[in-house]
Amino acid sequence: MTGDRVLTVRALLDTARAEGRTALTAPEGKVLADAYGIAVPGEELATDVDEAVAAAARFAGPVVMKIVSPDTLHKTEAGGVVVGVEGAADVRAAFCRIIENARAYHSAARIEGVQVQELLPQGQEVVVGAVTDPTFGKVVAFVLGGVLGGLLKDVTFRLAPVTADEAMSMLDSIRSAEILRGVRGRAGVDRWAVAEQIRRVSQLVADFPEIAEVDLNPVIATPGGAMAADIRVILAESSTPSRRRYPRDAILLTMRRLMQPASVAVIDASNPKADDILGRKAYKSVTDVPGEVDVAVFAIPARFVAAALEEAGRKNIPNAVLIPSGFAEIGEHELQARIVEIAERHGIRLLGPNIYGYYSTWQDLCATFCTPYDVKGGVALTSQSGGIGMAILGFARTTKTGVSAIVGLGNKSDLDEDDLLTWFGEDPHTKCIAMHLEDLKDGRAFVEAARATVPKKPVVVLKAGRTAVGAKAAGSHTGALAGDDAVYDDILRQAGVIRAPGLNDMLEYARALPVLPTPRGGNVVIITGSGGSGVLLSDAVTDHGLSLMEIPPDLDEAFRRFIPPFGAAGNPVDITGGEPPSTYEATIRLGLEDPRIHALVLGYWHTIVTPPMVFAELTARVVAEFRERGVEKPVVASLAGDVEVEEACQYLFERGGVAYPYTTEKPVAALGAKYRWARAAGLL
Amino acid sequence: MTGDRVLTVRALLDTARAEGRTALTAPEGKVLADAYGIAVPGEELATDVDEAVAAAARFAGPVVMKIVSPDTLHKTEAGGVVVGVEGAADVRAAFCRIIENARAYHSAARIEGVQVQELLPQGQEVVVGAVTDPTFGKVVAFVLGGVLGGLLKDVTFRLAPVTADEAMSMLDSIRSAEILRGVRGRAGVDRWAVAEQIRRVSQLVADFPEIAEVDLNPVIATPGGAMAADIRVILAESSTPSRRRYPRDAILLTMRRLMQPASVAVIDASNPKADDILGRKAYKSVTDVPGEVDVAVFAIPARFVAAALEEAGRKNIPNAVLIPSGFAEIGEHELQARIVEIAERHGIRLLGPNIYGYYSTWQDLCATFCTPYDVKGGVALTSQSGGIGMAILGFARTTKTGVSAIVGLGNKSDLDEDDLLTWFGEDPHTKCIAMHLEDLKDGRAFVEAARATVPKKPVVVLKAGRTAVGAKAAGSHTGALAGDDAVYDDILRQAGVIRAPGLNDMLEYARALPVLPTPRGGNVVIITGSGGSGVLLSDAVTDHGLSLMEIPPDLDEAFRRFIPPFGAAGNPVDITGGEPPSTYEATIRLGLEDPRIHALVLGYWHTIVTPPMVFAELTARVVAEFRERGVEKPVVASLAGDVEVEEACQYLFERGGVAYPYTTEKPVAALGAKYRWARAAGLL
Repeated sequence: MTGDRVLTVRALLDTARAEGRTALTAPEGKVLADAYGIAVPGEELATDVDEAVAAAARFAGPVVMKIVSPDTLHKTEAGGVVVGVEGAADVRAAFCRIIENARAYHSAARIEGVQVQELLPQGQEVVVGAVTDPTFGKVVAFVLGGVLGGLLKDVTFRLAPVTADEAMSMLDSIRSAEILRGVRGRAGVDRWAVAEQIRRVSQLVADFPEIAEVDLNPVIATPGGAMAADIRVILAESSTPSRRRYPRDAILLTMRRLMQPASVAVIDASNPKADDILGRKAYKSVTDVPGEVDVAVFAIPARFVAAALEEAGRKNIPNAVLIPSGFAEIGEHELQARIVEIAERHGIRLLGPNIYGYYSTWQDLCATFCTPYDVKGGVALTSQSGGIGMAILGFARTTKTGVSAIVGLGNKSDLDEDDLLTWFGEDPHTKCIAMHLEDLKDGRAFVEAARATVPKKPVVVLKAGRTAVGAKAAGSHTGALAGDDAVYDDILRQAGVIRAPGLNDMLEYARALPVLPTPRGGNVVIITGSGGSGVLLSDAVTDHGLSLMEIPPDLDEAFRRFIPPFGAAGNPVDITGGEPPSTYEATIRLGLEDPRIHALVLGYWHTIVTPPMVFAELTARVVAEFRERGVEKPVVASLAGDVEVEEACQYLFERGGVAYPYTTEKPVAALGAKYRWARAAGLL
Repeated sequence: MTGDRVLTVRALLDTARAEGRTALTAPEGKVLADAYGIAVPGEELATDVDEAVAAAARFAGPVVMKIVSPDTLHKTEAGGVVVGVEGAADVRAAFCRIIENARAYHSAARIEGVQVQELLPQGQEVVVGAVTDPTFGKVVAFVLGGVLGGLLKDVTFRLAPVTADEAMSMLDSIRSAEILRGVRGRAGVDRWAVAEQIRRVSQLVADFPEIAEVDLNPVIATPGGAMAADIRVILAESSTPSRRRYPRDAILLTMRRLMQPASVAVIDASNPKADDILGRKAYKSVTDVPGEVDVAVFAIPARFVAAALEEAGRKNIPNAVLIPSGFAEIGEHELQARIVEIAERHGIRLLGPNIYGYYSTWQDLCATFCTPYDVKGGVALTSQSGGIGMAILGFARTTKTGVSAIVGLGNKSDLDEDDLLTWFGEDPHTKCIAMHLEDLKDGRAFVEAARATVPKKPVVVLKAGRTAVGAKAAGSHTGALAGDDAVYDDILRQAGVIRAPGLNDMLEYARALPVLPTPRGGNVVIITGSGGSGVLLSDAVTDHGLSLMEIPPDLDEAFRRFIPPFGAAGNPVDITGGEPPSTYEATIRLGLEDPRIHALVLGYWHTIVTPPMVFAELTARVVAEFRERGVEKPVVASLAGDVEVEEACQYLFERGGVAYPYTTEKPVAALGAKYRWARAAGLL
């Protein structure tokens, strides 16, 4: 059957192609639908009255009857359409009336017969479609239909093909998901039938890459089923060449040599006559260097790169880091294509060109024209842009963020985010990966790499160019909806990636996520010295998709023992402003001790009784003590106070507490990001 | 007529009250609707066939006919309802059938006749309602109806009563506004008719405060009109006492003495025997102090306040600043009521109790238990919470933000946000007001004060407790929708207030808005050394409701003269990374010079060629030069680079450029806030 349907569709598409068409006709669409089991109204051509009666009887319900005549374009105007015909007598009468009308309208018209079509039931309109995304390839879409649904662009996307479960999940991913389950006394629709339509469309486009777009618009969903009123199929003008892919092992092999090189050659033409530079021996050519070289760092103008790359190839250097600009980014596409060709010929992987270089801190390696950075730690950062790379560097330095690597990607002529993700996923020093990107050369490879990495460590992505509405012409309803950032957003979320809304968020997540232990459950408790901070922290908790634990009576009683009678237990636990360090300590201890609590959000209020550093020290001490006992819970803190709180935050951050001054949002945003990852990684 | 209708409704409400009812019956609702011209279906009681025919004829269209019988509750079951009857013969037949059916169903039923009611047309369902908000009082709501509309909570609120124009503006304030204008070939609805329904409902609840809720659910809107299928009216259980109000002149008079006092008495019991404290003479009682005293600052425990307040009253001190806690916030409502009573008796206005005090920097006044602050400047900040007050202080100190005042509001037993807003609106030192609040004691007074202030200076509000879903029981559809933050959000926006999404946003807006000049138009241009920053800045521009100017060819040409051939003009203007200071300077000059450009967003990329302080100095110099020439445009900047960019940002901020390191969002958020204010103030 599978083979049969592929043959059927293949033949049909080849015919359309041969005729130079990119749009399929309605009958052709019906053939595809039938081949893939996509439910569309049954229809038959009746050439006489008896055939019409027989056809109508097979559909067991009212039918629509339409004249089929190549000379009659305006069927309704010609009296050639009758809707809702039921029963042999009425079908008979309608058939005769249609033929008569058509003759009367245009006496010489060629009449091929009358199409008898199942009448669609009333129901909830949805749209199922598929498009070819420039980044992710075949993507299937599910949209709430009807006038209002279309207006609201209530849509969700997945990579095609989808499994039955994935298709089902799409029904719950639209904002108005509830409507499909039945609201206000209306029965819900047959969700499995809708999901089947999605799955089958996704399989169709996956099987036939030359299908650019499919639109089932609308699908009528009822409690008894789901049927597409119409199927529209558009073929691609041309096929896109697929990008070269490397096997995972090969990626890891070269990435290891790039990020943990035993020897690095710097190719620099600034001082060609020198015998040594900064105390290291200099060579005329990289081929003269004795022994194996893992990385060649190119610090020469663009026009010299090709020749030097040939030499690197002869020396069997597996990685070339191309710092120079002057390639595709200024329109020199040919020059870039030439170095890519040289590299492929020699089996060299290229990083860049047009980058600031890269840092691998655990190797004490700064192969960059920027200032050095050596604070070792758990986050690997990458950026497509040099400006963002400099922002990463400055932010890391001022916050003393420990990094495992900072990598510039620039033009991404070869190595790109999926290669780096594959490596950082395995790198034991890297606890979290944060990537700035403007595009993905191969969205599917990225999703694969992300899916393999996310169960092990968080992946944060800042996607720039979110709001630039692509000016691409869309041939279908689904195509129009896929024009903006919605595809990226849905697909990245499905891949388990934490999307940072802005640059500063990416940097803060990168700083905070490796510091925070993974929560074991969803019970968040706020302990605050400032009632005002407590309210704002509660807002932030809700904003970031977290929920405040409902404190059971015994726990409430336990908290109350430590706080003044006019303080408020419940959640937030408001210990009130004038309390000594012992009250903060006792309540934080209780929060860490009680196994029903999974994460703590602290609100500190600067007073003479408990100065900022006293709070920071006691919090760090208690957190460390519990850590030694094997109890690790995420602890984040908002410090409200005079400038001394800044030092206190830094102190706490360096000791496992994610703490910020003058904001109630940032600590909770970081906690929210950790939770999002834990959920995506299946740890909650 | 107006008098008549008030009398009619008054009599009806009095009857319902007398009968102990809080819900009106359907016929009573119809009386109210008719009195206020709220379109509901016409209906008449026909006691015989001829009356029925006459009634149906008057409605000129199909009617619904229903048995009227106090003994027949299940009318449909009894065969007592016929829908869509038209023409004398059919009306006659339906009348007889209904009576017969009713008799057959229950032979002894008392039958009063048949109700003949206009049949509602098909159309777009909307809901018009009114509720009594605890903060803002009578509020009118407009909601998209239908199953999906209800699901999406697509609702907007206004203070009642509304004018015809305000009512009309509500139709465009819902997310799916387009649907009312007609989409996908469907005709739009009669927008004026819908607006009239809103206006009339708002007038009804404004005229009768005892009406707690009104629901027209649904209103059927068609191209030809708008008619409520049903009107539901709920009366209040009890009336809320109105808050004491002071006339504007009186507020300004005492506020001036509070904020610009000639003499301040500190009431402190810590050293009762001292003759002088810190070199100033001490008195046993405030009544002993010679001359006029403008403010008494209470720094004594709660239990001593009442007696001291009596003394302050005898001394005719107009303002008491009550720092002590121990009042309503810990449940001591009686104690608080007592001091309010004393204050009212003596004509003393109270600030607090339970506050950190207040700062009036231009008076060198720090009446607070916190650390002093003396950086004079243009922003007045207030907070309901002490913790947030400390965050304000620390943030201001670390950023060197110039403030005109910082005021704690605490329990707000008397003075509150509207009093402060009234004063700061007039205070020449204050250029911007930023307020943290958890509730408003009198939402209408706040809105009035905001409306009077916003045309002069920006008002920023951080409303805490946004997401806490009120557990209030709602008696109507509209009431249920008003349960969350939606009312605050709509009403504050209508008042022209800039709402800060979080604490840090409020602080940053407070710092930035007084620095930025008011834009004269909407054309924003990005000039960037980093293409990567340019993309992120573009995202931010869209996120914050701004739009990138479409650069006309001559201006494009002018920019191109300064940037390398591979740079990109257009918008962002990408001058590329390696450029010297002269390129930044020339393009910024052009941006300030060309009158078609209204605001500049700068993206700086740290290089050796143009170090951070060089960029900051040239930008500050050019901005100052144009300012002297009378050209003032908002200039904001994102600095990407190593830690030196921090100093550069501070330098620039102090010289009129709003600049931030390691973020592309914050500078644009500040610009967006300035634009939101300029629009609200009617300056754009």
